[in-house]
Amino acid sequence: MQKNIQVVLNRHPAGIPVPEDFALAEKAIPDLQEGQFLIRNRYFSMEPAIRGWLNGKPNYFEPIGLGEVIRAPSMGEVVASRHPDYQPGELVRGLNNWETYSVLSKDTILLEKVHPSAGVPLSYYVGALGPSGHTAYVGLHQIGRIQAGDTVVISAAVGAVGSVAGQIAKRRGCRVIGLVGSDEKARIATEQLGFDATINYRKTENLSAAVQAVCPNGVDVYFDNVGGATLDAMLLTMNVGGRIIGCGMISGYNQQDNPPPVYNLWEIVSRQLEFKGFLLFSYADAIPAAVAQLEEWVRAGDFKVLEYKRIGIEQTAPLFCELMSGKTVGKAVLELSE
Amino acid sequence: MQKNIQVVLNRHPAGIPVPEDFALAEKAIPDLQEGQFLIRNRYFSMEPAIRGWLNGKPNYFEPIGLGEVIRAPSMGEVVASRHPDYQPGELVRGLNNWETYSVLSKDTILLEKVHPSAGVPLSYYVGALGPSGHTAYVGLHQIGRIQAGDTVVISAAVGAVGSVAGQIAKRRGCRVIGLVGSDEKARIATEQLGFDATINYRKTENLSAAVQAVCPNGVDVYFDNVGGATLDAMLLTMNVGGRIIGCGMISGYNQQDNPPPVYNLWEIVSRQLEFKGFLLFSYADAIPAAVAQLEEWVRAGDFKVLEYKRIGIEQTAPLFCELMSGKTVGKAVLELSE
Repeated sequence: MQKNIQVVLNRHPAGIPVPEDFALAEKAIPDLQEGQFLIRNRYFSMEPAIRGWLNGKPNYFEPIGLGEVIRAPSMGEVVASRHPDYQPGELVRGLNNWETYSVLSKDTILLEKVHPSAGVPLSYYVGALGPSGHTAYVGLHQIGRIQAGDTVVISAAVGAVGSVAGQIAKRRGCRVIGLVGSDEKARIATEQLGFDATINYRKTENLSAAVQAVCPNGVDVYFDNVGGATLDAMLLTMNVGGRIIGCGMISGYNQQDNPPPVYNLWEIVSRQLEFKGFLLFSYADAIPAAVAQLEEWVRAGDFKVLEYKRIGIEQTAPLFCELMSGKTVGKAVLELSE
Repeated sequence: MQKNIQVVLNRHPAGIPVPEDFALAEKAIPDLQEGQFLIRNRYFSMEPAIRGWLNGKPNYFEPIGLGEVIRAPSMGEVVASRHPDYQPGELVRGLNNWETYSVLSKDTILLEKVHPSAGVPLSYYVGALGPSGHTAYVGLHQIGRIQAGDTVVISAAVGAVGSVAGQIAKRRGCRVIGLVGSDEKARIATEQLGFDATINYRKTENLSAAVQAVCPNGVDVYFDNVGGATLDAMLLTMNVGGRIIGCGMISGYNQQDNPPPVYNLWEIVSRQLEFKGFLLFSYADAIPAAVAQLEEWVRAGDFKVLEYKRIGIEQTAPLFCELMSGKTVGKAVLELSE
């Protein structure tokens, strides 16, 4: 068996991470204990949330220390097992590490078997058919409680989660508006993903007014992936009783010691809003429905899956840095070489 | 019948309101239309929310224009009626105006008959046994979903709502911590209202650390009456899945064009918090239970009702200005002369 190649934290990033914040390291693969199994990783799911674990301060997980492997969701194939339920050849996802081989057990967070459909690219199962898609689905239904006829605004609309959320909300009969950071992204959202309207926030002086202009009946649900000034502007557009899905706050991830201020929280009271944060691993019971429905839509062929892929473990850190600079469109996926 | 004396808006307040922002005016009492009835007001309920209606800008109600009477909750006695369900001598509460006589109909917001118990001061029915008490009750149960054993933190803890909320939460088996703005208020919260602990935020350099010190198991529910820097500090103390009851944001009411920033909203996602705003008039179905339970507790004699009372309509504006300067303790009530 080969050695394990890991991507480790070389130094705590300052602002937007750069590849030199990371390093490759070679480690021995430990012997399996009873109940453990070993996977060879096939894909890493690039997630903005990882940025929050790199500062050396507690977040919702323990911080990653210098020299330690980067915790991240991955999908891989079982290659050895001392657990009766996991057999070589099976595919599993879980919150693992950036490494070629990972040791898992039943306690692995977000552990799931993956049963790919014939004809569906395997990489989809870390993106639209993986936790990103499930996050979009659970957020819209469990937190946002979307109904046909709702006006739904989604920020980071061509991101891994937003690009799926927009298409789900359309299929539920909602009017869907996307907020994006470039005209190219706006074009993709409208032409490829079916958003009813898009706004390039970088070209908009008054985002609240721009949203109101395309949402004459107000906003019922805001799927927030970015926080900060965008959230602040959206608070002024919400209908009474509206829901804000707190999925992520990318705008603050690169500068966690200096988060962006939000001023308009009075609207939470005045408009009787519900602003609820969530993390997918707390909604395990809701995932099977998401898996089944998204799979059905993708197999039907008209659900667009956007990917931004790089190949080879040495591309992991550069790809993550591209993601955190806002350069990627769709799901950023690292494919490991055979 | 006498003329109607009204308190009207003389100018839009800048910052903390002063008595000169208001004026008295004498108006004719209009003839009753079919379905209307006339009350002689007995008590005005002083509410910080009124401050938000004085800026000439839309809030959750229409703004009050210059020269217009101040909208405010009151309680009065029916003195004439063209509505079959309301007879002279009955007591009613509603969102009326600062005036000696008000014309009501079935469309009056928060309209309720009041059936005072013998031996209970009538003024209690605009405070602890009125909308302030009902707000505390509905907020804790419907929004905060408090359970025995929860740690509950309440800001403006000796205010009209906070002083009731603290006593309710104690009776539900919660551990209750009060945030106040003076040592005198801290003493009242602990000695008279039974709070388990209090923190004078004006004497505290790091409010998050001070709350953590008295809440070693974290905070499950935060009853927010103030917003701003206090809310920001509380976000760092919440347990995963915690609830924030968005009842009011006094810290911003006197400077609505310059609301205080909040930086720590990432905690909403990271800690999976639910931050939900509410206004009592949207929870009419939940009010009867609040009425019955609070009445029972007050009659039993050990529920402390704090009042800050002034007498005579000419005292209305000065009393409101005291309230908005943080000088009152308990419910600020204006009693109208006979």
